[in-house]
Amino acid sequence: MYSFRNDYSEGAHFKVLQALADTNAVQTVGYGLDPYCRTAADTVRRLCAAPDAAVHFLVGGTQVNLVAVDAFLQSYEAVIAAQTGHVSTHETGAIEATGHKVCIAESPDGKLTPALIESVLAGHNGTEHMVLPRLVYISDTTEIGTLYTKAELTALRQCCDAHGLFLYLDGARLGSALTSPDNDLTLPDLAALTDGFTIGGTKNGALFGEALVLTHPLPHFRWHMKQRGAVLAKGRLLGVQFQALLEDGLYFDLARHANQLAFRLRDGITALGYPFPVSSPSNQQFPVLPNETVAKLQEMGYEFETDHPVDAGHTCIRLVTSWATPESAVEDFLRDLSKC
Amino acid sequence: MYSFRNDYSEGAHFKVLQALADTNAVQTVGYGLDPYCRTAADTVRRLCAAPDAAVHFLVGGTQVNLVAVDAFLQSYEAVIAAQTGHVSTHETGAIEATGHKVCIAESPDGKLTPALIESVLAGHNGTEHMVLPRLVYISDTTEIGTLYTKAELTALRQCCDAHGLFLYLDGARLGSALTSPDNDLTLPDLAALTDGFTIGGTKNGALFGEALVLTHPLPHFRWHMKQRGAVLAKGRLLGVQFQALLEDGLYFDLARHANQLAFRLRDGITALGYPFPVSSPSNQQFPVLPNETVAKLQEMGYEFETDHPVDAGHTCIRLVTSWATPESAVEDFLRDLSKC
Amino acid sequence: MYSFRNDYSEGAHFKVLQALADTNAVQTVGYGLDPYCRTAADTVRRLCAAPDAAVHFLVGGTQVNLVAVDAFLQSYEAVIAAQTGHVSTHETGAIEATGHKVCIAESPDGKLTPALIESVLAGHNGTEHMVLPRLVYISDTTEIGTLYTKAELTALRQCCDAHGLFLYLDGARLGSALTSPDNDLTLPDLAALTDGFTIGGTKNGALFGEALVLTHPLPHFRWHMKQRGAVLAKGRLLGVQFQALLEDGLYFDLARHANQLAFRLRDGITALGYPFPVSSPSNQQFPVLPNETVAKLQEMGYEFETDHPVDAGHTCIRLVTSWATPESAVEDFLRDLSKC
Amino acid sequence: MYSFRNDYSEGAHFKVLQALADTNAVQTVGYGLDPYCRTAADTVRRLCAAPDAAVHFLVGGTQVNLVAVDAFLQSYEAVIAAQTGHVSTHETGAIEATGHKVCIAESPDGKLTPALIESVLAGHNGTEHMVLPRLVYISDTTEIGTLYTKAELTALRQCCDAHGLFLYLDGARLGSALTSPDNDLTLPDLAALTDGFTIGGTKNGALFGEALVLTHPLPHFRWHMKQRGAVLAKGRLLGVQFQALLEDGLYFDLARHANQLAFRLRDGITALGYPFPVSSPSNQQFPVLPNETVAKLQEMGYEFETDHPVDAGHTCIRLVTSWATPESAVEDFLRDLSKC
Repeated sequence: MYSFRNDYSEGAHFKVLQALADTNAVQTVGYGLDPYCRTAADTVRRLCAAPDAAVHFLVGGTQVNLVAVDAFLQSYEAVIAAQTGHVSTHETGAIEATGHKVCIAESPDGKLTPALIESVLAGHNGTEHMVLPRLVYISDTTEIGTLYTKAELTALRQCCDAHGLFLYLDGARLGSALTSPDNDLTLPDLAALTDGFTIGGTKNGALFGEALVLTHPLPHFRWHMKQRGAVLAKGRLLGVQFQALLEDGLYFDLARHANQLAFRLRDGITALGYPFPVSSPSNQQFPVLPNETVAKLQEMGYEFETDHPVDAGHTCIRLVTSWATPESAVEDFLRDLSKC
Repeated sequence: MYSFRNDYSEGAHFKVLQALADTNAVQTVGYGLDPYCRTAADTVRRLCAAPDAAVHFLVGGTQVNLVAVDAFLQSYEAVIAAQTGHVSTHETGAIEATGHKVCIAESPDGKLTPALIESVLAGHNGTEHMVLPRLVYISDTTEIGTLYTKAELTALRQCCDAHGLFLYLDGARLGSALTSPDNDLTLPDLAALTDGFTIGGTKNGALFGEALVLTHPLPHFRWHMKQRGAVLAKGRLLGVQFQALLEDGLYFDLARHANQLAFRLRDGITALGYPFPVSSPSNQQFPVLPNETVAKLQEMGYEFETDHPVDAGHTCIRLVTSWATPESAVEDFLRDLSKC
Repeated sequence: MYSFRNDYSEGAHFKVLQALADTNAVQTVGYGLDPYCRTAADTVRRLCAAPDAAVHFLVGGTQVNLVAVDAFLQSYEAVIAAQTGHVSTHETGAIEATGHKVCIAESPDGKLTPALIESVLAGHNGTEHMVLPRLVYISDTTEIGTLYTKAELTALRQCCDAHGLFLYLDGARLGSALTSPDNDLTLPDLAALTDGFTIGGTKNGALFGEALVLTHPLPHFRWHMKQRGAVLAKGRLLGVQFQALLEDGLYFDLARHANQLAFRLRDGITALGYPFPVSSPSNQQFPVLPNETVAKLQEMGYEFETDHPVDAGHTCIRLVTSWATPESAVEDFLRDLSKC
Repeated sequence: MYSFRNDYSEGAHFKVLQALADTNAVQTVGYGLDPYCRTAADTVRRLCAAPDAAVHFLVGGTQVNLVAVDAFLQSYEAVIAAQTGHVSTHETGAIEATGHKVCIAESPDGKLTPALIESVLAGHNGTEHMVLPRLVYISDTTEIGTLYTKAELTALRQCCDAHGLFLYLDGARLGSALTSPDNDLTLPDLAALTDGFTIGGTKNGALFGEALVLTHPLPHFRWHMKQRGAVLAKGRLLGVQFQALLEDGLYFDLARHANQLAFRLRDGITALGYPFPVSSPSNQQFPVLPNETVAKLQEMGYEFETDHPVDAGHTCIRLVTSWATPESAVEDFLRDLSKC
């Protein structure tokens, strides 16, 4: 029985493991200053068509968010994020622990828009009695599976430029976003339209790791990292993994696989007559099932998160596929669901 | 022409000034450990019928809020406050600067209810991925002039007990609240129903100063104060002022005066046909006036804050009266308004 | 019997009190944006011959230190201070509470020198594994009563320039320093040689208040202040007091008085044969007395701090004079000491 | 040519890699709540004879130090550490960034003693004007290769008990310490004598990872971890590695190997007539070589850190061996050194 609980339920793709094994005995300097990290950073810059970008490799998502956001901001400056944004609710106040307020916009689909950003700005009078919202945090895909189009991201960029805001994109699930059929963004677009964004490895084939691409220069960023305990002694592990994922497209192949199985789930569940309140073109699917069906699937041994109750008799659940999900797991699930 | 901009536009009531002058030459130890502070703390405890409460005197409202809230909380714990709460928007992220998230509930009247608190709690799953909301911040009067009844505060206390929450009440305008005709709370009620609350001096006759009453013990609170720069060298100034205000009821007389003039404003403005969207039984009044009337009053030299635009032609303004407002200023304003 | 415990044992000089009383009824805007603060800031700029300096008025010494130092620094940057520096040991880690390390240099006389600064720098390798020392904190007079000459301060400035360091001077006792016979510094010198310094009011005739003079621009400084609870609602109180102290030299007259009485104490105690391990040309004097003499003086009712034990039988005590110390108190003390 | 720069220049021991590969395809829940982490935690508790200890697995040394130290302390409490302590100088103010002061004791050999601790305490007067030193930070082996005996650690424990201090031991190089011929401490001793200590994986055969053993309960420790970005999504990786290292003694075998090669280096260098100012019974050796010899070795391709200049002609260098160091590398080095 399979767990659709998350896209980090397994280890790493075998090519990533192999790369780690192949380089294991080589001696390098520590802290990410080694040749593997340099090569991987070059690969990132090349793929992003951003030769001047700074690229840093960090271990995890909350870590990279808290270090980067704090490095972008002065102490009295704040973040604008959707209420569903990972930094808003799922990081135990990690941003606030570095001293910054997260100003929340209620978004129906997990995405920010210029109008939502401006509604937050309108609640701030620009005096010293209020924080200055300075950085817009978005995620792609969002925490509820939606994604940004190029037009939408361009509009956000223009909004940020008009108001002197930084635009930061959390790409923990960027692979799924960029390989979605609904997507028209590219890595060079992201580099051109944001001040910083991450390419998530943890949820797409790596043991761990998030690559941070900074097109807006942040001096002394490595000091920020070290001060937050975010410099990995054997930083090479991050370079090796990202190079394995990115050098010939493995990253996107893995994400495409996850998406395809998610769509197979979506289509199969839809065919069985269950609704999806939010349409997600990515590797997280949120169907609504009768509570007894949910219980039955759990009894069978399927694992997944129950996102929220919809009414007394129904629950919205979350099914996540990954690079590691076998097709058979999806077919088994659909067959078992059809029996419920 | 008078300024209704705030209740801290003048200095101190003459009895407070006199007390400062009378004690000026006396030598005392510093930092609030002097006899004046001890006497004033005893007075506070007596008036609150709280013989075991700790009483601390701090200089300002944002200062006392940030020190007290941080002292109540562990680093991963958070505050629940109304969106209009002073700590939510008007303190430049002072709470977040001490590391704590402020979780916002949208309240129509600036007051929190058990339902609003529970709606915030419902958005937190109790795991280590989310902050733990731990302290409920309310203000009385609220930032928009409303106030709590004893029944409401009792319900909040029960809600807090049920969920293991601290209840903290910001009494920057507590004088106005406790002397409002709509009020049925007393200082002993506040001491019995909250874990900590402040008695605001700044807005009710003192040069400055907020008395913090802690019925929940917070060990080493003076260390928290000192670390935030909140220990006044000549702490005696706070003790002397609070003793002058509290020893024979001056504090409440001053607040009653402010309220009465606010009600005279309210009644006069209502008689002239202007609406008040929120009914305020305290010293802040929020009438809606035509924009040209607002402009005209300003041209005449009246000062007040424009709270928010209501529609294209109307603005909600804020008029604040204080212990220092002369009756003539109110009558002049009403007469001049009637001419507009 | 007099208390030589501190220079903030009394209230304010009567001219300061008078100025507060005279302006008490005038309405002004809050938060230090009023005409009194503007006038006082202009006075400070004029006296400092620093027409472009930013001048802010804060309530207390720890408060101004923590706000200013944090505003000067990025999060990974640190302070260099003498081990006796107020920020090193007497502010309950207030600087660290804003996230910055204080790197300590062991100074024999409470003063920093280029050599001491460079010894701290030598312990830091400039990599991301260590903080970057960025601000030199000095005090004048120092915490042990010594003071800087113009040559010494110029040398510190050159050292700071050579190493890219800010120079911040804590002037809690600046009046005593500038009126000392050993002094050759002026307010314009301080403005020219430091990036920021304070003119202490608390210890020299005000009820409270420190004027911060920033010659190095710190954008959004008022946001830093507000976030730390360091904006006084009736900010006018600070402007009124500093104008009263500075407009025609009262500040220096008061300090001169304190110094003269300190020197009378020093000379009288020396004449009685008691040693002074550190020569202090300012209003703090540190004689060494036999323990029984210390006890006897305390029994008589004299108050002072015992700085540290010197040997089994002797203690170094601290005697502080102020603008408020009457000549008779000094003469009484000397007479009583001679009897011991 | 070999790098003696550090003990994290290579990847992981092959048994650790193998364990990661063997478990790679298994699905588990995230965040260290998986069976591998539970098993490894049980193993740690068993080896420590500490059935009630809490065991957490974190990624890196600075990370575990900053999270644990902050979790032990209230905001006004401080750390006591040797000037050579990792938290004192090599973590970019990570402790201060969580708000706590690090009070430094000058130790000749990198070790703390009751006398040194008490000298720090003597500099703090116990009032609210100073931080309260509350946690003693030691490392074993120390940053300069020395180690604690059971008698010394017992004395520290008694000192801490006498003064109400926590005792925290950074075991980044604990393997080297516990397998040193000079050692008489065991894991159960450490659990019995400290409030918390770490078992370092990064420097002894793991890809990364530090096991934190808390015998003093710290409620909500996982919230502290998450808030600092210190919860690894695939936490299983830590459990798998520590189980592989600890289940049948591999951890100690690897450390013994590192020590033996270090002693071979030490003996060989001593035989060549070069001095070692500090005697280190562990895997870091600090010989003093003539500058031209240092340069020559570097030209040959050997890598190591130059710890500090000793005089105009000599430098103290640091040679670090590890589980991965081949005997031949040591013999080659000694042969090449003998030629210099």
